[in-house]
Amino acid sequence: MQKIAKKESTAPQTPLDLLSSFVQEEINQVNDLIVKRLENPVTLIPKLAGYLINSGGKRIRPLLALAVSKICGYRENRQISLSACIEFIHTATLLHDDVVDESNRRRGQETANIVWGNQASVLVGDFLFSKSFEIMVEDGDLEILKVLSKASSTIIEGEVMQLSASQNTTTQVETYYNIIMAKTAELFAASCHIGTILTDQPDYIRQSFIQYGLNLGLAFQLVDDVLDYTANEEILGKSLGNDFMEAKVTLPVIHAYEKGSIEEKAFWERTFNSLNQKPGDFEHAVELLKTHKAFDYTLEQAQMYSNKARDSLSVLPNRMQTYLLADVADYCVSRIH
Amino acid sequence: MQKIAKKESTAPQTPLDLLSSFVQEEINQVNDLIVKRLENPVTLIPKLAGYLINSGGKRIRPLLALAVSKICGYRENRQISLSACIEFIHTATLLHDDVVDESNRRRGQETANIVWGNQASVLVGDFLFSKSFEIMVEDGDLEILKVLSKASSTIIEGEVMQLSASQNTTTQVETYYNIIMAKTAELFAASCHIGTILTDQPDYIRQSFIQYGLNLGLAFQLVDDVLDYTANEEILGKSLGNDFMEAKVTLPVIHAYEKGSIEEKAFWERTFNSLNQKPGDFEHAVELLKTHKAFDYTLEQAQMYSNKARDSLSVLPNRMQTYLLADVADYCVSRIH
Repeated sequence: MQKIAKKESTAPQTPLDLLSSFVQEEINQVNDLIVKRLENPVTLIPKLAGYLINSGGKRIRPLLALAVSKICGYRENRQISLSACIEFIHTATLLHDDVVDESNRRRGQETANIVWGNQASVLVGDFLFSKSFEIMVEDGDLEILKVLSKASSTIIEGEVMQLSASQNTTTQVETYYNIIMAKTAELFAASCHIGTILTDQPDYIRQSFIQYGLNLGLAFQLVDDVLDYTANEEILGKSLGNDFMEAKVTLPVIHAYEKGSIEEKAFWERTFNSLNQKPGDFEHAVELLKTHKAFDYTLEQAQMYSNKARDSLSVLPNRMQTYLLADVADYCVSRIH
Repeated sequence: MQKIAKKESTAPQTPLDLLSSFVQEEINQVNDLIVKRLENPVTLIPKLAGYLINSGGKRIRPLLALAVSKICGYRENRQISLSACIEFIHTATLLHDDVVDESNRRRGQETANIVWGNQASVLVGDFLFSKSFEIMVEDGDLEILKVLSKASSTIIEGEVMQLSASQNTTTQVETYYNIIMAKTAELFAASCHIGTILTDQPDYIRQSFIQYGLNLGLAFQLVDDVLDYTANEEILGKSLGNDFMEAKVTLPVIHAYEKGSIEEKAFWERTFNSLNQKPGDFEHAVELLKTHKAFDYTLEQAQMYSNKARDSLSVLPNRMQTYLLADVADYCVSRIH
């Protein structure tokens, strides 16, 4: 539970570490609340949900909600339960994702569906979704309820769009962006938005933080989609090549397919559209992606969104400690190098 | 969509038909709204969700919400969207149930997971859940939000309890009732409760309708658990023996196991606890259930809850047309004979 903000004794602090330190006390409270809200006489629930929630995720969404609340000068404590709520939504989508993708590994350990079975993962995901709604209803702010319930259904629309677009190498760039906007960026934006609602900020401040969240989310997902082909498995914490195996058409693939020769297109069509994958195909895919500079291209896009995220903060009053968020935006892309 | 209240030209009207006629106009509006709220550019969503929602379910939960609203003298139109919301919650649980249970047939057709795959069923179930929350948030009544979000998470707790208790023939009767209370009765009660909140009824009236819903839900599920062993497949609309195949320990089995000889206990332990089922086992199970009058016993329990449901209405003012609901309670058990 305490993994998230623990300093490595030797490694230098990253901007994400600094953001965690900024809201250290609050994130500890969020972690405690998560444990408490998972308590249930049906022991499968705390066991399975806790397995994933305590597996050392970065808690980036709750961190954003807590940090924006603090930066905006919030002095009460509603951000704690709302951040737990956001983490529940996120964890629910991860549990269902792993069932949908038939994944084996996440965050360096076996996925919950492998340990407890798909049935349990589906139901405990549902439990977390419904618990997240209970938490927001308890909070009782209709504006926040609107933002978070909209974010939840948008995430799921994104997941369905992604499923519909899989095994289709002619997926448009626009469709890809619609998918990652929905499945990732929206909850990043909602997390930031919460902090501005809690402190009743004027519209231009709300919009700045929302834009920050949206663009950070896009950058974050673009980098993730590169890492799925290039990371060390140890760093990634999940199996390399998941997207390839699942024929998930991400920006690097769209780019390489567009630039590819007829033979190369045939390769992508066989491995993605027909899902006919043989040993060595993944390595060949990585080669093609490198040849066409698909990773460079995708990371340039990520950098652009990261810059937009940083820029969106520039209109904010000087008294706000937004440099912490700006540095996270830069780090989100630079972490890959 | 119009199936629900359509009269068969020859068959006599059942109490459920009469209840449908009582709220004919409203249920049509609910059906229209369901279609409208399923509209989505991601075509998989309306296709898959519509497949199940339009498959001729009895719409009993929306009917209860509409009928109680009308009986209580409600004159506005919030009950329409709230009833659609309730049907979305119910449909979401059906979609996920069929994935969890690996079911093949429901309502006389192939299940959605068979037609579109588990992945799509999981995600579209999530979509319906999140859409249901959006609808209640739009309605914007915190008391109703509390009732419905609590009902949703209780249903899911019930499903997890049921999964935890499966393959265990020593499941206690109390555990079984906790499961069906959570997975079925709670949403029946919430549906009735909504109508009393919309019309701001005094506590004793709210409690009467809530108790009606709870007891009707229990009776309904008890009957369903008998039908799973005894119905014609045509009537049931889903495969006979689902509960047996999934080693779902329902009241008839708990009863027969308790009363069974050592050899019979060994049979139940092999087929349920070890999930080692051979051809002819289902038929043998039905024989044992009959020998120990497990169906009679379960239906007696159902009758008791149906009586309780009827009785709970007796304190209500005479001006209320509660006989419609009372007759549905009786019919819910008598339909099996």
